[in-house]
Amino acid sequence: MKRLGIALLGAGRMGQEHAKALAGIPEARVVAVADPKKEARELARQITKAERVYEDALAAIADPEAEAVVIVTPTETHAELIEAAAKAKKAIFAEKPVALGLEETKRALDAVAAAGVPFQIGFQRRYDPGYRRARELLDQGAIGRVDQFRQASRDPEPPPLEYLKRSGGIFVDMTIHDFDLARFLVGEVREVVAYGAVRTDPRVAELGDVDTAITVLFFENGAQGVIENSRRSVYGYDIRTEVFGEGGKIVVDAVPKTPTWRFREGGLEADHYHFFMDRFKEAYEAELRAFVEAVLEARPPSPGPEDALAALRIALAATRSLREGRPVAVGEV
Amino acid sequence: MKRLGIALLGAGRMGQEHAKALAGIPEARVVAVADPKKEARELARQITKAERVYEDALAAIADPEAEAVVIVTPTETHAELIEAAAKAKKAIFAEKPVALGLEETKRALDAVAAAGVPFQIGFQRRYDPGYRRARELLDQGAIGRVDQFRQASRDPEPPPLEYLKRSGGIFVDMTIHDFDLARFLVGEVREVVAYGAVRTDPRVAELGDVDTAITVLFFENGAQGVIENSRRSVYGYDIRTEVFGEGGKIVVDAVPKTPTWRFREGGLEADHYHFFMDRFKEAYEAELRAFVEAVLEARPPSPGPEDALAALRIALAATRSLREGRPVAVGEV
Amino acid sequence: MKRLGIALLGAGRMGQEHAKALAGIPEARVVAVADPKKEARELARQITKAERVYEDALAAIADPEAEAVVIVTPTETHAELIEAAAKAKKAIFAEKPVALGLEETKRALDAVAAAGVPFQIGFQRRYDPGYRRARELLDQGAIGRVDQFRQASRDPEPPPLEYLKRSGGIFVDMTIHDFDLARFLVGEVREVVAYGAVRTDPRVAELGDVDTAITVLFFENGAQGVIENSRRSVYGYDIRTEVFGEGGKIVVDAVPKTPTWRFREGGLEADHYHFFMDRFKEAYEAELRAFVEAVLEARPPSPGPEDALAALRIALAATRSLREGRPVAVGEV
Amino acid sequence: MKRLGIALLGAGRMGQEHAKALAGIPEARVVAVADPKKEARELARQITKAERVYEDALAAIADPEAEAVVIVTPTETHAELIEAAAKAKKAIFAEKPVALGLEETKRALDAVAAAGVPFQIGFQRRYDPGYRRARELLDQGAIGRVDQFRQASRDPEPPPLEYLKRSGGIFVDMTIHDFDLARFLVGEVREVVAYGAVRTDPRVAELGDVDTAITVLFFENGAQGVIENSRRSVYGYDIRTEVFGEGGKIVVDAVPKTPTWRFREGGLEADHYHFFMDRFKEAYEAELRAFVEAVLEARPPSPGPEDALAALRIALAATRSLREGRPVAVGEV
Repeated sequence: MKRLGIALLGAGRMGQEHAKALAGIPEARVVAVADPKKEARELARQITKAERVYEDALAAIADPEAEAVVIVTPTETHAELIEAAAKAKKAIFAEKPVALGLEETKRALDAVAAAGVPFQIGFQRRYDPGYRRARELLDQGAIGRVDQFRQASRDPEPPPLEYLKRSGGIFVDMTIHDFDLARFLVGEVREVVAYGAVRTDPRVAELGDVDTAITVLFFENGAQGVIENSRRSVYGYDIRTEVFGEGGKIVVDAVPKTPTWRFREGGLEADHYHFFMDRFKEAYEAELRAFVEAVLEARPPSPGPEDALAALRIALAATRSLREGRPVAVGEV
Repeated sequence: MKRLGIALLGAGRMGQEHAKALAGIPEARVVAVADPKKEARELARQITKAERVYEDALAAIADPEAEAVVIVTPTETHAELIEAAAKAKKAIFAEKPVALGLEETKRALDAVAAAGVPFQIGFQRRYDPGYRRARELLDQGAIGRVDQFRQASRDPEPPPLEYLKRSGGIFVDMTIHDFDLARFLVGEVREVVAYGAVRTDPRVAELGDVDTAITVLFFENGAQGVIENSRRSVYGYDIRTEVFGEGGKIVVDAVPKTPTWRFREGGLEADHYHFFMDRFKEAYEAELRAFVEAVLEARPPSPGPEDALAALRIALAATRSLREGRPVAVGEV
Repeated sequence: MKRLGIALLGAGRMGQEHAKALAGIPEARVVAVADPKKEARELARQITKAERVYEDALAAIADPEAEAVVIVTPTETHAELIEAAAKAKKAIFAEKPVALGLEETKRALDAVAAAGVPFQIGFQRRYDPGYRRARELLDQGAIGRVDQFRQASRDPEPPPLEYLKRSGGIFVDMTIHDFDLARFLVGEVREVVAYGAVRTDPRVAELGDVDTAITVLFFENGAQGVIENSRRSVYGYDIRTEVFGEGGKIVVDAVPKTPTWRFREGGLEADHYHFFMDRFKEAYEAELRAFVEAVLEARPPSPGPEDALAALRIALAATRSLREGRPVAVGEV
Repeated sequence: MKRLGIALLGAGRMGQEHAKALAGIPEARVVAVADPKKEARELARQITKAERVYEDALAAIADPEAEAVVIVTPTETHAELIEAAAKAKKAIFAEKPVALGLEETKRALDAVAAAGVPFQIGFQRRYDPGYRRARELLDQGAIGRVDQFRQASRDPEPPPLEYLKRSGGIFVDMTIHDFDLARFLVGEVREVVAYGAVRTDPRVAELGDVDTAITVLFFENGAQGVIENSRRSVYGYDIRTEVFGEGGKIVVDAVPKTPTWRFREGGLEADHYHFFMDRFKEAYEAELRAFVEAVLEARPPSPGPEDALAALRIALAATRSLREGRPVAVGEV
């Protein structure tokens, strides 16, 4: 069995999750872990049984046994590390987004293209069994031509204001996953109109951001779509998708979390997913497995650089639409 | 037990359904049935055990034992019959809409106001046990302040082109029920933006209408909403509602039609509602029962004239928004 | 339209429900209502618009315009009224059971047979849309040969001890509906074994009865079955059916009562049926409609005398099994 | 981080699954893999990154770095390996059953007791999130005293006749998991009655076994229970559990497999679990994680030797009940 030498860059909360996922992939061999925090990198080392740890991600990229890097560092470092890894001819898995801005994103992806290295972006929903099944059904023509797309995504709690300031705004930070799902299930988006509101904390408005949004999508194939977002859902992480077409409808909706129902006076009740990590645990494992397999088998991993770019363009178009109060063509961005 | 003498005006498909519903209401006594078609009015007479039949609805309104009228005639006759019934001091239940245009609607409702007669409009969803329960939960503060509203409504098949021509367009003919539901569950609508597409038959476009639509709603209380419609749903009549707020979410979604699941190789399956009459059978009975009780008890029936008018205004605003490609304030109409 | 003249015998709680159902059937014309209580019979008269009322059920049977009787009187009077109606050549709909004992039941049904009058027993579940759909699927061969049958039925609250004393015991009073369902969906029962417990009130044991039971069924076609009962279900009326076969499984399970879900902190919840009348409202209407139609069209109504007898035999075999602690062949009874 | 040195004994289908699960547990360090088949042991070595491989399980037990063994060898070898591991003072995780017979089981567990080593039996359902949640709810008193327990378990396909011959019969081979679940959720079982049928292949009868069974349970706390089994379920692996009590009901029922619904003409459909490994993937991982943690923290792992023995006793009592056609007290065995 051939195994892929991997440097794990970043050992924060998501880094630890990726460490566990990598530990469970037989074809993956984590050779190095990098994180500025000693405790974090040591924990990830133990989880992954990695041989070496680094304070500096760039040093880990240079590790001679690292054939690939898994980038789970803070967002603002992604682009630089992608460029460095590309130059070092390493296969790259990067958590989304590449960068908050289009220019920086393009520069990083240009470096990837120039180096000809494999690149996968962390849109994990594509690897969720529910969404994979939806994609299969669509491929089988289960509903024929798509006419409408509906997506609701809500996070349990707004992130801290400090995070929000540097997040790029709700569309780039959060809705980008929905935009990718729209592309995955329906196709390219031609134009968007975004409507926002501030319902959780007035300071969100001061940042020029919103916490509640409806985005209308117009796809190149003529389908319409709508996405609803909220930063605060008291019942937990909420995600539901509907794809409606001339031949039927496909719905993906994971409720409840455990298949355990309590019947009590007058009714029944069940639990709900709390975090996106709960909902997409399998997907996070599967996307890394797919990355490792693709690199080992010299196939291009997916979703790739074009997917990273396309979702960002839609997110930026939505941001502009909200600011300027008008429909914005994705091609404008 | 006091009983209300009723003249049933119209004995077509919906008229027959209303006849059956009235027959099952102890407090209702159908004294007259009117329909230009002999066979139809005779059938309704038998169902309701009515004493008299009329060819002409105006004659039935004048029936001395008729204290109330139930108007289920073709849409274009509603306004005239409402006016006539109002002048004759009869209580009025009218299928929606009062009329396709605002002026005609106002004139009819002004006649109702002038006469001081009870008036109820046939927005039957308000009497569906699922939606009543939603309303109760909202009244109990189950989700606190509402932030988002989502509604999908799809009919199994587009009506004939002949019907479409005189329908007033998708928003006045079909979405009006969703607009009423939005008002029932969330509150007054301030502004709408509508987006449409033609996906079933290019001749719909020639009529200046659409068969697929997304309407974004802005409520006076700050909530956002979205409605999706399609004139053709191969799996049957599709209606699902979500009300999301600071304290939770309420979902009304009646699937499957019968609680009978078939497990077969590789999966499971169930059936689906075909027509809106299937889905809202109980609601159609309950709304008439409520009308009869309100009139007998001298309470104003609900939804009333202001609800008929308000939903039409939103529908007309949506129609204008679609035509002019811009958000339209409901107050503009 | 031909209409069937009906005498409604009994205007208690269930009688009122049957009155409402009859009022909604165009082909039914209630000509007489009988009940010893004046208020009850007057109310039913108003509901049904009946022409005459009687204190004595036998007098109502003799009403010359009554072509059929609907018997909803207390259980101990059923057999006598059935015999009287049969002798008077009236079509008969009787609430279950015909009688608590086999001899009395046979005598009544013999009178029916001798008179050659139509007879239907009130096993309403056969007319529930969910169970009808199950029967259709079975008829279509959806699961091939049946191997196992599971049924759970639980009532919200134990009846008063006074009622229990004269109820014939849990199997004759309550499980009889499950036995009929077993026959309806799977076929004839060859043998039963019953196990009981007292969990709600020790006085139930003093009556020689149980309030909690498991009954194992052996069908003539080789299938096995099991029924669980309880007299007390705090969450409401509980009924779930599973039919498992070589080609799949059919499940009938109506939960929740309204399709309205509340998502709140950490979970979601819905309501539950409280009484069997809630769950089987449509079935009660449909069984009477079917009776009226069958009589008018001179078809034998269903379920008929043989179904009334067969279910009682199984119930008596289960009672004997419980008392004697051994399997009892239905043919033994 | 302390890590537990583990020898994995057996690298067949289930062994590979356990290898993957162990690879994903940071605190587990697989030091040795044993399997007579070279290819199998090499594959498991790669998955687990084990340092050594052995042809002979006894040699792996003796590996000086192995502090614990995970036994996934064929059933007939379990007892011998358990005894050997106990003598070698290794912590033991063993797939169920310890042995098919009571004497052999006791001898092995006596060796465990004598050695004082930690022992866990592979009743993985106890670690399924759905069943854990059920247990939590019961612990919180959600339904009060339990009155009834229902369990259905069906396998997709009967195993080969060769396997059946040496399986110990359906109760020891298959229902034993249900007996353990009954104990986990309700408590000790006092008596059982078993009823069987042969519905898949007449040769099963020649082996003295059945492929379809209903087992009635009487618990020491007075609750009743029933278990239904079939060896052939065309729709896939079927498992559903209901615990009914004075204060409510808890249901665990994982359907469908993916939360992806297809709506098509007239209805809707979803997929179903195929194998028990699909359904209990998380449970298999969690039980090994729990074992490793318990051993490292010097807590007794659970379910332990007494659980292995108790479930087997019930299975043997059921086997005797079926053969002798009578209720059998568990204490009789």
